[in-house]
Amino acid sequence: MISTPVDKQLSGRQYLTPESVLSDSPNQNIFPLTARSNDRDRLEIGGCDVVTLVDRFGSPLYILDEATIRAACRAYRQAFDRYYDGETQVMYASKAWSTLAICAIVASEGLGVDVASGGELYTALQANVAPETIYFHGNNKSAGELQFAIETGVTIAVDNWLELETLAELAAGSANPVRIAIRFTPGIECHTHEYIRTGHIDSKFGFDSDRLDAVFEFIAARSHLHCVGLHAHIGSQIFERDPHRDLGKVLVEKWQRATAKGLKLRELNVGGGLGIRYTEADDPPSIDEWAKAVCEGVTTACESAGIALPRLLCEPGRSIVGPAGITVYTLGAEKTIPGIRTYLSIDGGMSDNPRPALYQSQYCAIVANCTS
Amino acid sequence: MISTPVDKQLSGRQYLTPESVLSDSPNQNIFPLTARSNDRDRLEIGGCDVVTLVDRFGSPLYILDEATIRAACRAYRQAFDRYYDGETQVMYASKAWSTLAICAIVASEGLGVDVASGGELYTALQANVAPETIYFHGNNKSAGELQFAIETGVTIAVDNWLELETLAELAAGSANPVRIAIRFTPGIECHTHEYIRTGHIDSKFGFDSDRLDAVFEFIAARSHLHCVGLHAHIGSQIFERDPHRDLGKVLVEKWQRATAKGLKLRELNVGGGLGIRYTEADDPPSIDEWAKAVCEGVTTACESAGIALPRLLCEPGRSIVGPAGITVYTLGAEKTIPGIRTYLSIDGGMSDNPRPALYQSQYCAIVANCTS
Repeated sequence: MISTPVDKQLSGRQYLTPESVLSDSPNQNIFPLTARSNDRDRLEIGGCDVVTLVDRFGSPLYILDEATIRAACRAYRQAFDRYYDGETQVMYASKAWSTLAICAIVASEGLGVDVASGGELYTALQANVAPETIYFHGNNKSAGELQFAIETGVTIAVDNWLELETLAELAAGSANPVRIAIRFTPGIECHTHEYIRTGHIDSKFGFDSDRLDAVFEFIAARSHLHCVGLHAHIGSQIFERDPHRDLGKVLVEKWQRATAKGLKLRELNVGGGLGIRYTEADDPPSIDEWAKAVCEGVTTACESAGIALPRLLCEPGRSIVGPAGITVYTLGAEKTIPGIRTYLSIDGGMSDNPRPALYQSQYCAIVANCTS
Repeated sequence: MISTPVDKQLSGRQYLTPESVLSDSPNQNIFPLTARSNDRDRLEIGGCDVVTLVDRFGSPLYILDEATIRAACRAYRQAFDRYYDGETQVMYASKAWSTLAICAIVASEGLGVDVASGGELYTALQANVAPETIYFHGNNKSAGELQFAIETGVTIAVDNWLELETLAELAAGSANPVRIAIRFTPGIECHTHEYIRTGHIDSKFGFDSDRLDAVFEFIAARSHLHCVGLHAHIGSQIFERDPHRDLGKVLVEKWQRATAKGLKLRELNVGGGLGIRYTEADDPPSIDEWAKAVCEGVTTACESAGIALPRLLCEPGRSIVGPAGITVYTLGAEKTIPGIRTYLSIDGGMSDNPRPALYQSQYCAIVANCTS
């Protein structure tokens, strides 16, 4: 979201007031939990006056609120404990925001970290995230990245045949079996921007779900590949709950196929995908509601299939850091085109936030230095 | 454009052959002028084997061909000399690719440089581009950037009232008059992606063309502002010639208004906008044809108005560096979805080329390490 320090040129216009945005309490907040109007009529986050921060660090300025990040981590852990009778592990999808500080914060809250490149893996390790809680994703990992992952002992989510064959070769030279999981395309449609749908059949991510038997047979024949689980992900910024419920059923079906082929699995990874509020019109489920749908989906499917509850993993990203963050811009030039619109220029753009140009994303803005 | 080193997995499929792309000669080339298939059946540019370059520098790898850049600079200068009887100055729009080397190359070909940020201005100056051939654009220049521009003696294309008033204040403290030009919105529609249209009425760039009199009066009353010309730009990646012709007429009309208000102008800046070929289906005019349309438009308008030919400036960017460049990727994983499509993964994406995701841009690809 965007908050905008401005001078008096904006006075008298109709903008969102901080009160209307900061005080509303739907399933999710738009602003960080600690956001408020302070005594100087300025936006404050985490006890810091936002205008003072811009004076010190310049703009555009990203601000992330640690309290909001920690609250989201706890909400995920508590909800998975509440709604699932088996073991659970929440992992932060670091593609949402990959820095040493964020990795350290989420790890201190008991989360693992999901990484999607060698750089993200390196960052998580440097932040002292335990390798056994790191999951390495990606549809085009290089041989160098795979070797790095093997040496550090993280779980590798294998995406395709090239990767599986490369891993089989690399693992043959490894002292210990290499821990892997299998990602497949679940064939579930959901409503989000076409750029960030990953669960439908026409997705570049994961093995074809109709042709997994050969994958399972390949792994079962190789003792140096230790397959611990299955993974599927339906997409990002999703407001629906039913696709997440459906995912449990699909995962358990494939679990049974894998078991029939001789694999001894222990965990299912349902990915992430919970959408967040960018504007007042957005109405996503809460973290609790999302976790309930996911846990019930997996539990029901396991009960129907008569199998014990596996260890359950999930990978939220955006819903942990998104509501914790704002970007502050400084207003510059103004151009009014009579009868058409008024342009207000800010000192930022595609380089600090590509989403409006990429996805036509909407944001909510307030005036940070004049909140009344 | 993209060229793709691959192994034998691609053999037998139908791809563009380098011969078909490298040898065709429409108005513009897709590949750099020096591109050819070498004796090892590999793509070669500027005498360098592209596969060897990837071995040395890694991929994704941008390669720019100096010979193509120099040829484009000469084509612009020669065409403007041929079709225009007055003085001309071609300026490279460095937003297309701003580096020390490129600025130095275009300057050595007699081009000036148009810059759109303090960073680009700094780069051009560090490359020893003469300040009197630098034009500073932007719809939201900061006071710091304007001060920097004044101190270095470049021409400032003033975009709006906030900037004009800031400049008037800063210029009052300057030893010499500050050289400026006035940018306005010409109100010309043309066919290009909505993200890169700048000439239509609803554009954030430039003064409203119907309300320029007040701008001219403001400047005429201030001796420390030396207004040398007018500028308008209709957009980027344009294949039509008529909008460029129309621009001359609009510029000359405003020239007459400025003169009536007491300004003594010397130059008109028509901007850039010539589109280039990304695929075989693209059919832009040549540099020569574009220059002819621009020069004829201005000349005809001046003759009709009975004014002497002003100094004529233009600002090509994409058409100078675009055809000179390729990006080389290495192929990785492959995923075939029966009846739908096959995905070939490369080691690049939005971070090295946002245009496909932003504009749904199409490119032409050849196999760089297996050209026969």
